[in-house]
Amino acid sequence: MDSRLNGNEEILMSLLVVGSLALDTIETPFGKAERAPGGSATFISVAASYFIQPVRLVGVVGGDFPKSEIEFLQEREIDLEGLQIIEDGKTFHWHGRYNYDLNSRDTLKTELNVFADFDPLIPESFKKSRYVCLGNIHPQLQKKVYQQMSSPKLVVADTMNFWIQGNYDELIDVLQYINVLIINDSEARELSKEFNLFKAAKKVQGFGPKIVIIKKGEHGALLFYEDEIFSAPAYPLESIYDPTGAGDSFAGGFIGYLAKSDDTSYENMKRAVIFGSTIASFCVEKFSLEGTRDLSHLEIKDRFNEFKRFSAFEPVDL
Amino acid sequence: MDSRLNGNEEILMSLLVVGSLALDTIETPFGKAERAPGGSATFISVAASYFIQPVRLVGVVGGDFPKSEIEFLQEREIDLEGLQIIEDGKTFHWHGRYNYDLNSRDTLKTELNVFADFDPLIPESFKKSRYVCLGNIHPQLQKKVYQQMSSPKLVVADTMNFWIQGNYDELIDVLQYINVLIINDSEARELSKEFNLFKAAKKVQGFGPKIVIIKKGEHGALLFYEDEIFSAPAYPLESIYDPTGAGDSFAGGFIGYLAKSDDTSYENMKRAVIFGSTIASFCVEKFSLEGTRDLSHLEIKDRFNEFKRFSAFEPVDL
Repeated sequence: MDSRLNGNEEILMSLLVVGSLALDTIETPFGKAERAPGGSATFISVAASYFIQPVRLVGVVGGDFPKSEIEFLQEREIDLEGLQIIEDGKTFHWHGRYNYDLNSRDTLKTELNVFADFDPLIPESFKKSRYVCLGNIHPQLQKKVYQQMSSPKLVVADTMNFWIQGNYDELIDVLQYINVLIINDSEARELSKEFNLFKAAKKVQGFGPKIVIIKKGEHGALLFYEDEIFSAPAYPLESIYDPTGAGDSFAGGFIGYLAKSDDTSYENMKRAVIFGSTIASFCVEKFSLEGTRDLSHLEIKDRFNEFKRFSAFEPVDL
Repeated sequence: MDSRLNGNEEILMSLLVVGSLALDTIETPFGKAERAPGGSATFISVAASYFIQPVRLVGVVGGDFPKSEIEFLQEREIDLEGLQIIEDGKTFHWHGRYNYDLNSRDTLKTELNVFADFDPLIPESFKKSRYVCLGNIHPQLQKKVYQQMSSPKLVVADTMNFWIQGNYDELIDVLQYINVLIINDSEARELSKEFNLFKAAKKVQGFGPKIVIIKKGEHGALLFYEDEIFSAPAYPLESIYDPTGAGDSFAGGFIGYLAKSDDTSYENMKRAVIFGSTIASFCVEKFSLEGTRDLSHLEIKDRFNEFKRFSAFEPVDL
């Protein structure tokens, strides 16, 4: 095979992930994790790495980010050329506590540390990445990443209530460059000012992203692809240990599968939503990154097929 | 064809519905209906009549129940031999107001009237009905209906928070005779004292019904069939005008299709859940009974197929 072809293929299947890397202290009714590795870029990259390697990561950590975790990311073929390590700084730290039903949480502490001055500089070798996943960071930083890229094929972004409430105009501005926006149901309602999720999605599509994914936790997810609607079930988990990183794992599985298959058709994007749901379901079964740290392709395929099994039904003539 | 065979077929495909008939005054943000025909038996029977005719109804009304509505039920081939008409009494009257998001409602007035002394006497010719749907009435009355039946093939029941809170022991008692319990998510949590719906369903199965259906409104429905779980999507309605009767319409479409097909296998029950969801989706598009009063088989089939279209996805090899 021609080596240039290999080179092109690599470009076609390339994925850039930009977001936070954090050390999280998490309390749930089932236990506590102290300064466990987390952050949107971490969860997204690890999830995506089950589909495509290398994943190109851009982010920042302090000198306290464990070397063993850096090595773990490298073992998962995550390219850390864009990872800034501020040796005399401290990593972004979040301390949260989930309530008994795990549906709500209180933030006990947020220390931005080195993340406060995060300037996402995209290495030259990353700029031609065809797939871009913008984790949940300031909308202006998301735009800055976009502007450094050289005509990406698909830009996926996450956001959260914090930016909807505090940086609405900047968020609306960056949305025009986004192809796929991934948000949860309460964010969709807040961003659109519509209670009905189908109306909410249409309104968000009007802001720019022609593809909107609304995550509904225990109720699954909705994919709005131009005029099409796909309803994905949730995996029937009887026990959820820690929801931290579930949304990022969803995004990582979703974009990882898309980047690998390099097929952004509606049919394929439905599968990507199921792969995202699959990785998210593994994420919440254990604390922090433990749920997605060491998955096999067989486990992922089996669970994908379970999603199919419990949502399929056969037609009938009345 | 042998006339006895016809006779047997009729018995095999027979459906009995017991519940309330009411005159409802309903206020929603979109308008008001005054003394419109409603009640669980009405909504269930009408929904079921699109699949099986006749539907055998047992209930009670006062002399104020409009003759035109009696005629409408007869036109839909609903057998009213078991309908008690107390000429000098008044029909059960409910007056409710929905809040802006239609997810909660306040009861402004409940006048039981003739329903207060309802004694469900099953006509001899109804006692061999193979399929029985017990609408949302006092658990003791549900049990009384069951005891009059001659070995039904499938007994489906609905209930509500009111009975869970006020008549828990009687409800638990009747559940041992029920094959399929249809409840909504908050009722499932209250009945089982489990927040997680998958745990809740297992616990309810332990009370008797090996099949439990949990309705989740805008999030669809879950079917627990012994050890199997089926997740049904909701129809993507942008506008809901009146949720009154949606649960009963679901139950009616579900049991009507089952009674018609006389097939209680898991595969077929998944379809029944979709037919239930289909009729419920028509119900909420208009006020009161208007949404299900005049449907065609083609409309029902088309919408069933839409449910399939927006929940289906194809497998793939990683």
